[in-house]
Amino acid sequence: MKLEKLVGDRFRERPSDCVVDSHALMVRGGYIKYMTNGIFSSYLPLKRVTRKIEEIIRQEMDAIDGQEVQFPVVMPASLWQQSGRYQSIGKEMVRFSDRNGMSLVLGMTHEEASVHLVSEYGQSYTKYPFMIYQIQTKFRDEARPRAGLIRVREFTMKDGYSFHTSQEDLSDYYDRCLKAYQRIYERVGLPQVVAVASDSGMMGGNISHEFMLLTPIGEDSIAICSQCDYRANTEAAACIVDHPRVQPSESLARVTTPQAHSIEQLCELLHCEPKRCCKAVVYQRNTDDRYVVLFLRGDLEVNEAKLTRFLGYDIHPAVITEESGLVAGYIGPVQLEGDFTVLYDQSLAGLNGLCCGANLEDHHYTGLDMTRDVPQAQYHDFAKIQQGGICPKCGKPTITISRGIEVGNIFQLGDKYTKSMHMTYLDSEGQAQYPLMGCYGIGIGRLAASICEAHHDAYGPIWPISVAPWQVHLCAVRADDAQVKAYADELYQQLQSKGVEVIYDDRKVSAGVMFSDADLIGAPYRVIVSPRNLKNHSVEIVSRDKQFSENLPMETAADVVRQILSKALAGAKE
Amino acid sequence: MKLEKLVGDRFRERPSDCVVDSHALMVRGGYIKYMTNGIFSSYLPLKRVTRKIEEIIRQEMDAIDGQEVQFPVVMPASLWQQSGRYQSIGKEMVRFSDRNGMSLVLGMTHEEASVHLVSEYGQSYTKYPFMIYQIQTKFRDEARPRAGLIRVREFTMKDGYSFHTSQEDLSDYYDRCLKAYQRIYERVGLPQVVAVASDSGMMGGNISHEFMLLTPIGEDSIAICSQCDYRANTEAAACIVDHPRVQPSESLARVTTPQAHSIEQLCELLHCEPKRCCKAVVYQRNTDDRYVVLFLRGDLEVNEAKLTRFLGYDIHPAVITEESGLVAGYIGPVQLEGDFTVLYDQSLAGLNGLCCGANLEDHHYTGLDMTRDVPQAQYHDFAKIQQGGICPKCGKPTITISRGIEVGNIFQLGDKYTKSMHMTYLDSEGQAQYPLMGCYGIGIGRLAASICEAHHDAYGPIWPISVAPWQVHLCAVRADDAQVKAYADELYQQLQSKGVEVIYDDRKVSAGVMFSDADLIGAPYRVIVSPRNLKNHSVEIVSRDKQFSENLPMETAADVVRQILSKALAGAKE
Repeated sequence: MKLEKLVGDRFRERPSDCVVDSHALMVRGGYIKYMTNGIFSSYLPLKRVTRKIEEIIRQEMDAIDGQEVQFPVVMPASLWQQSGRYQSIGKEMVRFSDRNGMSLVLGMTHEEASVHLVSEYGQSYTKYPFMIYQIQTKFRDEARPRAGLIRVREFTMKDGYSFHTSQEDLSDYYDRCLKAYQRIYERVGLPQVVAVASDSGMMGGNISHEFMLLTPIGEDSIAICSQCDYRANTEAAACIVDHPRVQPSESLARVTTPQAHSIEQLCELLHCEPKRCCKAVVYQRNTDDRYVVLFLRGDLEVNEAKLTRFLGYDIHPAVITEESGLVAGYIGPVQLEGDFTVLYDQSLAGLNGLCCGANLEDHHYTGLDMTRDVPQAQYHDFAKIQQGGICPKCGKPTITISRGIEVGNIFQLGDKYTKSMHMTYLDSEGQAQYPLMGCYGIGIGRLAASICEAHHDAYGPIWPISVAPWQVHLCAVRADDAQVKAYADELYQQLQSKGVEVIYDDRKVSAGVMFSDADLIGAPYRVIVSPRNLKNHSVEIVSRDKQFSENLPMETAADVVRQILSKALAGAKE
Repeated sequence: MKLEKLVGDRFRERPSDCVVDSHALMVRGGYIKYMTNGIFSSYLPLKRVTRKIEEIIRQEMDAIDGQEVQFPVVMPASLWQQSGRYQSIGKEMVRFSDRNGMSLVLGMTHEEASVHLVSEYGQSYTKYPFMIYQIQTKFRDEARPRAGLIRVREFTMKDGYSFHTSQEDLSDYYDRCLKAYQRIYERVGLPQVVAVASDSGMMGGNISHEFMLLTPIGEDSIAICSQCDYRANTEAAACIVDHPRVQPSESLARVTTPQAHSIEQLCELLHCEPKRCCKAVVYQRNTDDRYVVLFLRGDLEVNEAKLTRFLGYDIHPAVITEESGLVAGYIGPVQLEGDFTVLYDQSLAGLNGLCCGANLEDHHYTGLDMTRDVPQAQYHDFAKIQQGGICPKCGKPTITISRGIEVGNIFQLGDKYTKSMHMTYLDSEGQAQYPLMGCYGIGIGRLAASICEAHHDAYGPIWPISVAPWQVHLCAVRADDAQVKAYADELYQQLQSKGVEVIYDDRKVSAGVMFSDADLIGAPYRVIVSPRNLKNHSVEIVSRDKQFSENLPMETAADVVRQILSKALAGAKE
């Protein structure tokens, strides 16, 4: 198509409200337009990118026996009440009533809908396994949309759901899907995406993986072992610590510590290390504000995902009132009395020689011995893994923490949904059983933004050829020159007739304007027709990443361009 | 793919709640599953049909310079407040608030979103004309969803919006789009769809057309002239009547007419024709229940679409109370006093010798002369065109009324949206102007159902090859026969490698079960491998509509099938 006709404006200046590059380039290049918080419209160039991404995903899902279906965006609340998520999911889910007062929700994920669709079909073991998927709009009322298409409220997602009669079969299919995902990332130009173990969050189930594009702008932090293949979202990573005891164990002594409300102040005052403190962190249950007091080693931080998973309910940081019975800044495990939930992180197990709050304003204890002084404590893993921490797999202190964008996730759900929604099949013995499920998601818009994030320079995106909005950007430099215009017009026709996806710029603008627009469109190859080139009976082809440049004879230019593209496309498919 | 693996059940019995055939066949064939009132999920066969329909539409929209974009499903209410439709649209539009209390709506159409997307781009006349379209989910909270996919609440729609700098340019593009629509209906197998003039309803604007598939199950009624090319939705069709006067004009006389509340009772009592009655029909304004009294000729019916359009507000049939000042059953235009809106249909203009209510219980007048007795009356067109009525175009009494399903609509919107939303461009003189818009919609699911409605028999859909879920249904009859299985497996592979879309039934079931399933899947060609055929070294190919049947030599069967398909596909494209 002609660039002159392309709806959407392109800008030279980076918009001041764009924090990440993909957001800035998608605004500058006329890919998206902001409508309201976390909600965007897309122009043609992005639509072309996402349609190509969708087609790649569709091919890979079909290749692992997926069947494309479609679930509704608007669903009855009753379906979500069956699974229990109508109650357990918070404000992210939009709820409303129709004209007859019936409660409806906007779909943010479709486990319930998938069980609804296949519950009669799947009544016999002979029908298993099967996988259904859709590519459809979702809405999640995110508290903090950010970074353009990286975190939005309305998005298009491929979500798939598989059904199985044994854990072995689920595991096998899960592995097939994991490999299909890896092929998808390779084909869209992100072979560097890594699968990491993750927290299953509101999905339920046990085993799950996220696919991460490692980048400093990512929202997630990932623990990676430099010595083995351990990789996990820090939300899911076990925090392993050693538990050195001090010999001999001192006795418990109360000391005066005025104004020592924080671990830093306490350590300064008592000349001890944070590692030798027993820190209290206090939360409240969302539903009734009941207090949850968690003790952990003073140098560690709380992993709230693990804590929530353990508790089974949502919490928020506490507001400690005078009536609470807690003495803010001076909370300790000895003689802590009141109607609280009290938890102990495993980092404290067996430690002695610790400082801790004395549950009395301006006082701490020293010499705390967990085994001796808090004999009733039960220990669980509630702490965040740290840079330089111990690898849960190989045991070496070789953990590094990186940032990443989650560009996909897969979950083994088990029978969480089939059980709660009473979907059963008869096994070969005639016994009713709950099928096991897996689910598999990829956000299309976020993936497009991530590709842009991984492939761009200061001037625009450098789209991989497999997902580029157009393959060739044809520039008629000095289109007011009759010879240039005539030859460029002809080349445009020839390229199109050879099936090349070409965007043609024949505006009477300077080469500078033309090239900066081409940079923003980001087609992998630029073909330049200019008076200077034509004088040499040639046209110039340059790759967007500047790695490749060649002069082609005028006569055979279209054919050679076609060959170059075929080679590049074949390379992208490998 | 293998039929055995196809998710979805097929049923022999027609579900009792299905009124129309397409609904029944889509349920019986495993195309759709009901979730709640007007909301369905789709299985793979329907998804394959709708994806083909979408691709045909996309090609035709691109061919008239459309650019595919995407608007959000969820939009801020503020956008709809700008255009005024937040106030004017009733309960069909879903409204809700997000977690921060911001008012949002679910998109039921996207005029506002399209203006939002291009309002900066379209600031200069040099950018015009342009057209943008999307294929996206919509939600309209219909009061009465019915007939499966014919009238639903959630649906996928192609909606396009064009922008112009002159009425001439808009008209030209509108005609191009009308022709593109006709090509779309031809390509999906519905060349019989007709374009009819329509009422613009909530869209605004003046000129609009609906594309109608004529069928007795349709919801719309269409006036068609058998003598000229006049075709219009009865909602939009002018009602033309002659106005014969009786000579001489009798004088007005009050007569006692006990129990004559209806035109039928009155005519029986007074021995007159309905044509000689002046009938009153009473409505109330939705907002404040103010009465609207409409008089029209006794043999005609009110066209509420015209009435609403004239009034500019919504109405409902009146509940006539004692305090209203109206005497139910005896309302007439003479000495009618009270705070009502009183309207006169043009069918009454100049008539005399009429009966009418006397505004007094159990009394009517005879001898009413509209010109003499109701001199203040102003006449407008509020009546429904009727079977045998006068054609508004050629003037002959040759109107027939047919039922139709609306499978698309196009509107010339003028500046309704650009003006209310303050979108302007600078013309070549530097003057600010409002662009003119057209909009163009096709519901994908309804179109699929309409194709099924037009192409089916008692056993299932007979999909046109251009939209069929699969082109070939391969049946291995007696798949327990090793030779049958081996050959059918090979043919399945060969057909797939030649690019044929084939669904393969190798279940060990009877030929009867196999064929009835094939009928429900509705692939245009069935290829049958059976012990009897193989004895003759042949396979059988039969078209779904039974018009074509041939025995093919085993060795070349795949090639011949491919040729038959190519010919059929080429035919479909013509």
